[in-house]
Amino acid sequence: MGKNNDFVKQITKKSEDFSKWYIDVIKRAKLADYSPMKGMMVIRPYGYEIWELIKENLDRMLKETGHRNAYFPLLIPESFLKKEAEHVKGFAPEVAWVTIGGNEVLEERLAIRPTSEAIICSMYSKWIKSWRDLPLLINQWANIVRWEKVTRPFLRTTEFLWQEGHTVHSSYEEAEEETLKILDIYKTLAEKYLAIPVIPGLKSENEKFAGALRTYCIEALMPDGKALQMGTSHNLAQNFSKAFNIKFENKKQEIEFAWQTSWGVTTRLIGALIMTHGDDSGLILPPEISPFQAVIIPIAKGNYTKSILSEAKKIHNKLKEKGIRSCLDDRDSYTPGWKFSEWELKGVPVRIEIGPKDLEKGQVVLVNRIDRNKIFVKQENLLSTLKELLNEIQIKLFNRAKDFRENNTNNVERFSELKEIIETKKGFIKTGWCGSNKCEKEVKEKTSATIRAIINEKNSNFKKCAICGKKAKHTVLFAKSY
Amino acid sequence: MGKNNDFVKQITKKSEDFSKWYIDVIKRAKLADYSPMKGMMVIRPYGYEIWELIKENLDRMLKETGHRNAYFPLLIPESFLKKEAEHVKGFAPEVAWVTIGGNEVLEERLAIRPTSEAIICSMYSKWIKSWRDLPLLINQWANIVRWEKVTRPFLRTTEFLWQEGHTVHSSYEEAEEETLKILDIYKTLAEKYLAIPVIPGLKSENEKFAGALRTYCIEALMPDGKALQMGTSHNLAQNFSKAFNIKFENKKQEIEFAWQTSWGVTTRLIGALIMTHGDDSGLILPPEISPFQAVIIPIAKGNYTKSILSEAKKIHNKLKEKGIRSCLDDRDSYTPGWKFSEWELKGVPVRIEIGPKDLEKGQVVLVNRIDRNKIFVKQENLLSTLKELLNEIQIKLFNRAKDFRENNTNNVERFSELKEIIETKKGFIKTGWCGSNKCEKEVKEKTSATIRAIINEKNSNFKKCAICGKKAKHTVLFAKSY
Repeated sequence: MGKNNDFVKQITKKSEDFSKWYIDVIKRAKLADYSPMKGMMVIRPYGYEIWELIKENLDRMLKETGHRNAYFPLLIPESFLKKEAEHVKGFAPEVAWVTIGGNEVLEERLAIRPTSEAIICSMYSKWIKSWRDLPLLINQWANIVRWEKVTRPFLRTTEFLWQEGHTVHSSYEEAEEETLKILDIYKTLAEKYLAIPVIPGLKSENEKFAGALRTYCIEALMPDGKALQMGTSHNLAQNFSKAFNIKFENKKQEIEFAWQTSWGVTTRLIGALIMTHGDDSGLILPPEISPFQAVIIPIAKGNYTKSILSEAKKIHNKLKEKGIRSCLDDRDSYTPGWKFSEWELKGVPVRIEIGPKDLEKGQVVLVNRIDRNKIFVKQENLLSTLKELLNEIQIKLFNRAKDFRENNTNNVERFSELKEIIETKKGFIKTGWCGSNKCEKEVKEKTSATIRAIINEKNSNFKKCAICGKKAKHTVLFAKSY
Repeated sequence: MGKNNDFVKQITKKSEDFSKWYIDVIKRAKLADYSPMKGMMVIRPYGYEIWELIKENLDRMLKETGHRNAYFPLLIPESFLKKEAEHVKGFAPEVAWVTIGGNEVLEERLAIRPTSEAIICSMYSKWIKSWRDLPLLINQWANIVRWEKVTRPFLRTTEFLWQEGHTVHSSYEEAEEETLKILDIYKTLAEKYLAIPVIPGLKSENEKFAGALRTYCIEALMPDGKALQMGTSHNLAQNFSKAFNIKFENKKQEIEFAWQTSWGVTTRLIGALIMTHGDDSGLILPPEISPFQAVIIPIAKGNYTKSILSEAKKIHNKLKEKGIRSCLDDRDSYTPGWKFSEWELKGVPVRIEIGPKDLEKGQVVLVNRIDRNKIFVKQENLLSTLKELLNEIQIKLFNRAKDFRENNTNNVERFSELKEIIETKKGFIKTGWCGSNKCEKEVKEKTSATIRAIINEKNSNFKKCAICGKKAKHTVLFAKSY
């Protein structure tokens, strides 16, 4: 094995085979790997570090809005899962069951949580007695198992990581307010941190969470023209409180069933990130959630080796001190060219080069990952220029994705048009819908597109339903989806 | 239900019934609760916030020493678990098995991870080729299931949370160095953050991890005279690399099996914390890992209500700004007296009272949770005095626990003495051991005490083995344990 035995191999071009490119990037950038457990992936350190940054930012926003973390059991007795009828119907087909524990066959089989409403609600019915106990705002960071038939790393895996919020309120209005507040936090997470523009909306009856009254979502458009659901927030109303007997004494001293919400985002967000921003050279990570915001590559040559390395170290330490996530690649068994490719593949937004000439001139070179544009900057201006550049990259990634989405969103009045677009260029289709199950089903059968979100529930700006021609109740977004 | 329906009820006295006191504190301070899943607890927000602070500090120390987090699958195929013979023998009796997934009976049953060596090593054998890939320093924060017959919240539960490190090295010496480095980090975590003095040592053959060559541990003495293992660090040598075929090309271009370690601490640490520091009034939390370091209780009366509340808020905001984890209890449905009891029960190290007289004098009152000692302090000196007091409490808790341990550690030369101490006052017993399985077994059978740690492996300061009277090889600590 030579010293470059893991030399950056060519990855498939994004424009040529999007699905293959996606898998190539994940494997080559060491974000994740297939495991011996079919459908379950290993999240490697580089991928997990992205997840840690997503977690850190979302966790802070949730805490700032009064939510507290807790931890509930992984296993749920079957009888508990069955208490809410819609819920069990939705999840039972995907459950992994524990039937043996400590060499003994269990009397009742146990579900590995496909979501935790059933176990959490059973505790809430013990904890909640009075309006004084409300609102109860709890979140859990956990692993989830759903027995999926077709899987793809990050996007759909048999096990995934997520957070699930479960809150209890004293009125429907408060629960609805919470549901929307979280949807807004998810939008901020997607747009401000992941640099992915999303459209918030309401799910149709067919697409909503099993057990919810209303499911809201944020939807993004991927480069292949398919929609990706990036987070959901459910107003559960009293569906679970009635099933699990969660009652409280209200201010009028009447006993009432409580009002609940639940909501979650998953490691799927990393999939969205990869697809949205990457290019033929690999990943491009938005600075806000990039494990390394800048990578310093010393171009060490001849007599200069020592002085360049020591200068590179100084810069690295200074950046770290100032809160920049900097990486110094001073490995001597790889050439600068190899390192350029590797860190481009890993999507680090800015590369900092320092060679003999730069040292002489007291400058460094900043290279923008998006367009490889170079900026020569005096050392004393490095920090401010770098911060500006990172900010610029963050905004540019968002704007680029937003432009793509806008160029791939079509207003449509007739079904024939809808069908043609889905069959050719795909993307989001904005249209009127009468609200009937029949029309929704017809689109799905004939085009395989579904309603991703109702974006104008009350006053459709379309006069007619694109399918049946009757009066449009809602404006909706149709798309093929992941 | 009156307004004080959850008034702080009397908890059992620690001195009267230690076990009952322990459960009372957990339930009343809302650290955890029993769940419908036998043996699995719910970690409530207050308990989880302690875990978050433990995690934060340990995670930082692990990252500073080059470890990176990753995530591996929850489920392990039975055939993988069986690859290392000792390992499966040790864990098989405690495994929960998934036999059905998505309505279908699985061809091979899947273990919920009782520890992750088997799944992680299977990946390492793919990833590691050369000495250049080493050391590989990976850690995972995860949930673990072990089917326990007798459980107790935090101390032994069917599901628990932990971190598990799994590292790979190019020599035995490097692996041994890593094992000891981690043991030292665990000692720092226990002593500096949890304020619990621990004794590091080596496990005997009988007590070591199933599959390890050498298991090191940190052991603490609880107030009831029983030892608690607070963390373990294993040198796995080549046991797993041989079973899972993890080979690398060394610098001499020879193919060699890799050298490994694994190590972990769990939510059990919270149990140690509760037992070590608490008193008849409830928890006492060391400031370093207390979710709230100070609780501000305004004594709002008559005309002063408004001015006192606004002053309390100012203080609260100032403390938070300065990085103190402060809590302002401005609920008006509870009396100050009720709040005093509640926050003592919850173990907040410092209470800050502010009443009409204090307002007039420009002062506040700091109350030390350990001894209720009061300090009247001018507002301008609040921050510095509070910081000193927190520091003092942290040190005092550690010293108090250390004194207790020293007063309850006995040097013993003869078995009769050992037996008498174990039967009466318990505690740690330091003695000589010949190293034979027979003598170790005899102590266990006759006293139920076990060797907690070999604390002097090479040069025992005891001449003879306390059991057989032959030459002592090691100095060991005997104790009853959790």
